[in-house]
Amino acid sequence: MDLAFLGSLAQPGARKIVLCSLDGLGGAPHPATGKSELETARIPNLHALATRSACGLLRHVGPGITPGSGPGHLGLFGYDPLRYPVGRGVLEALGIDFELRPGDLAARGNFCTVDAEGRITDRRAGRLATEVSVRLVERLRGIHVDGAQLLVEPVKEHRFVLVLRGAGLQGPLSETDPQQLGVPPLAARALEPAAERAASVVNRFVEGARSVLAGSAPANMVLLRGFDQKPDLPLFPETFKLRAAAIAAYPMYRGLARLVGMEVLKTGTTFLDEVATLKEHWEHYDFFFLHYKDTDKAGEDGDFRAKVEALERFDALVPDLLACRPDVLVVSGDHATPAVLGAHGWQPVPVLVASPYCGADLVSRFTERDCASGALGLLPAHDLMAVAMANALRLAKYGA
Amino acid sequence: MDLAFLGSLAQPGARKIVLCSLDGLGGAPHPATGKSELETARIPNLHALATRSACGLLRHVGPGITPGSGPGHLGLFGYDPLRYPVGRGVLEALGIDFELRPGDLAARGNFCTVDAEGRITDRRAGRLATEVSVRLVERLRGIHVDGAQLLVEPVKEHRFVLVLRGAGLQGPLSETDPQQLGVPPLAARALEPAAERAASVVNRFVEGARSVLAGSAPANMVLLRGFDQKPDLPLFPETFKLRAAAIAAYPMYRGLARLVGMEVLKTGTTFLDEVATLKEHWEHYDFFFLHYKDTDKAGEDGDFRAKVEALERFDALVPDLLACRPDVLVVSGDHATPAVLGAHGWQPVPVLVASPYCGADLVSRFTERDCASGALGLLPAHDLMAVAMANALRLAKYGA
Repeated sequence: MDLAFLGSLAQPGARKIVLCSLDGLGGAPHPATGKSELETARIPNLHALATRSACGLLRHVGPGITPGSGPGHLGLFGYDPLRYPVGRGVLEALGIDFELRPGDLAARGNFCTVDAEGRITDRRAGRLATEVSVRLVERLRGIHVDGAQLLVEPVKEHRFVLVLRGAGLQGPLSETDPQQLGVPPLAARALEPAAERAASVVNRFVEGARSVLAGSAPANMVLLRGFDQKPDLPLFPETFKLRAAAIAAYPMYRGLARLVGMEVLKTGTTFLDEVATLKEHWEHYDFFFLHYKDTDKAGEDGDFRAKVEALERFDALVPDLLACRPDVLVVSGDHATPAVLGAHGWQPVPVLVASPYCGADLVSRFTERDCASGALGLLPAHDLMAVAMANALRLAKYGA
Repeated sequence: MDLAFLGSLAQPGARKIVLCSLDGLGGAPHPATGKSELETARIPNLHALATRSACGLLRHVGPGITPGSGPGHLGLFGYDPLRYPVGRGVLEALGIDFELRPGDLAARGNFCTVDAEGRITDRRAGRLATEVSVRLVERLRGIHVDGAQLLVEPVKEHRFVLVLRGAGLQGPLSETDPQQLGVPPLAARALEPAAERAASVVNRFVEGARSVLAGSAPANMVLLRGFDQKPDLPLFPETFKLRAAAIAAYPMYRGLARLVGMEVLKTGTTFLDEVATLKEHWEHYDFFFLHYKDTDKAGEDGDFRAKVEALERFDALVPDLLACRPDVLVVSGDHATPAVLGAHGWQPVPVLVASPYCGADLVSRFTERDCASGALGLLPAHDLMAVAMANALRLAKYGA
């Protein structure tokens, strides 16, 4: 559904919604047992919650489409990810609390390793230590290109953000990362005539980087991708008439929440910290987005057992979430990360919506298989907010 | 989803997809037993496959809409049939390996029987023997109309193809087949001013046919329908980056596959031949479309028992398909042909997608009722290719 339509029905109110995103929640059966991570884990609290919830499966982009974290979360927030694309550079910049100004062109940077012929041998420079990266970013800051302000910020390990600031610097630009080894980095190309100036600035920056990094192997070159400007999104708090707060230990997810206008609350580095932050701020907001990273991390590592344990750790904290007595508790994720894939997947993601009015179904276990026959059906992720708002009795009737 | 969008995510790869279309697969309960053809048939191999697959129901055009074979298969190939309409004449021409040129206007022809007053008494002239039809086509070739080249080709039994070639011959035209008995054939009408010339040529051809066929009862007249020009479709192999082959014993389905750019492999007249062809060419392609006709034939005849047996015959060959070890096996159909209807139906069609990453659901029987609660949900047919591609790990992630 259209955000403007939902906004036209949204009502102020006192009921509170908690949306928990278990990153990479969805899984797939382990070949040895035929059971998915959720089916293997001991998660009594989630099963109990599913029993009294309306359950279903979320699809974030479309059937068969594997969402990145950006599209996955925008979907959870109510934004159709195909209608509101956001570049990687923008997400990366927002994730380090970099205040992007209108017109800034941001890119995600990687330090990488090239051989004597300039061919890439490691796209991540051996996942460089963050402290080394911070020093190398200092060198990149010494690069000057006429007609543009170049802002470089370290992120984590081999990653950094490059922001081009100045009049007439705009995309779309092609990426310099060829996403393969044994070939040199690509030149950035203007994908429209208006992007010529930005392409030239980027390429001069890259040549500068090649000089200042010469001899600093393994990090002797850079790759840039996801050039984009901050999109002009409808704001989440205004649209849904919610005082909305985001609690996320990882920068990318804070950045996403900030992008749609949520307030980002200071928290610690663990989900336990996030729950403490939730309790602390409970009175001051009526929508909380909580992000749980461990499930995705284990899935990306292809570590089935670790993903099971991450689910069990989350489950153990469910009573703490319930202790806040949210009027509506939503548990789902931004995409699947099945351990058998070791990567994001296209598989639909279990979702539960618990409220006194949710209209529970026959589902009594929070698993992919069980949720497939839930009352929410197979739901586009960007329609989930409507269901959450309805359960908070914060959506007016449509028509008389 | 949009084909161009899918194409932008498609990746080359080594994993192979087999798509089996059981023509008219979907059925409906027999009034005496309350069980559909799939529920009645002994199909242990399909049930076993469903158990380890993601299952669902396909909808080819829209709720309540009965697809023809053209839209039904275009949907399976990833083309929204409402966006890419294809006329019957075009399909018929492609199905006999007739090389349609851009601008050619093709129609499907039937020999029919008319009485002394010119009223239709049999729309198929008693399903005329093909050899008789071939001789009568020779007579039709003797008809000449100024300003147009008329090409007539026999198909099978009472069917033939008429192609109008020449400048300014275009549709849309109304059909001359009234699809009922007791009335005379209709004149072709131009449905837009630009089609006037074509309408006039068609009507003069039909009058010529009436003359040259006089006295050759039961085939003493012709009916024409499905006037259309070859559509300009995005090509399947390019879009999905697949070396794609079609194996179909029946011409129409070969024609459909050729229309989207698949390579059509020479095969025999039975599905057993098709499976042999699959094995023979296994190494040279990474997508195979196999067409199984018997289910539709039995359904069209209103023969419930025959359709059950057709399903059982297919089931017996499933192990041969699996012996090729496809990375992704998809089984579905182009539309329902419930024997109780004796015709194509609008009912959604069971689908299963088997792969190591499919994310199986609770469905353990390949039936209409069971698949309704599968993980794929109720899926537009033209989104099926995205799911198949994803399971072959040949679709890139959308967004970062």
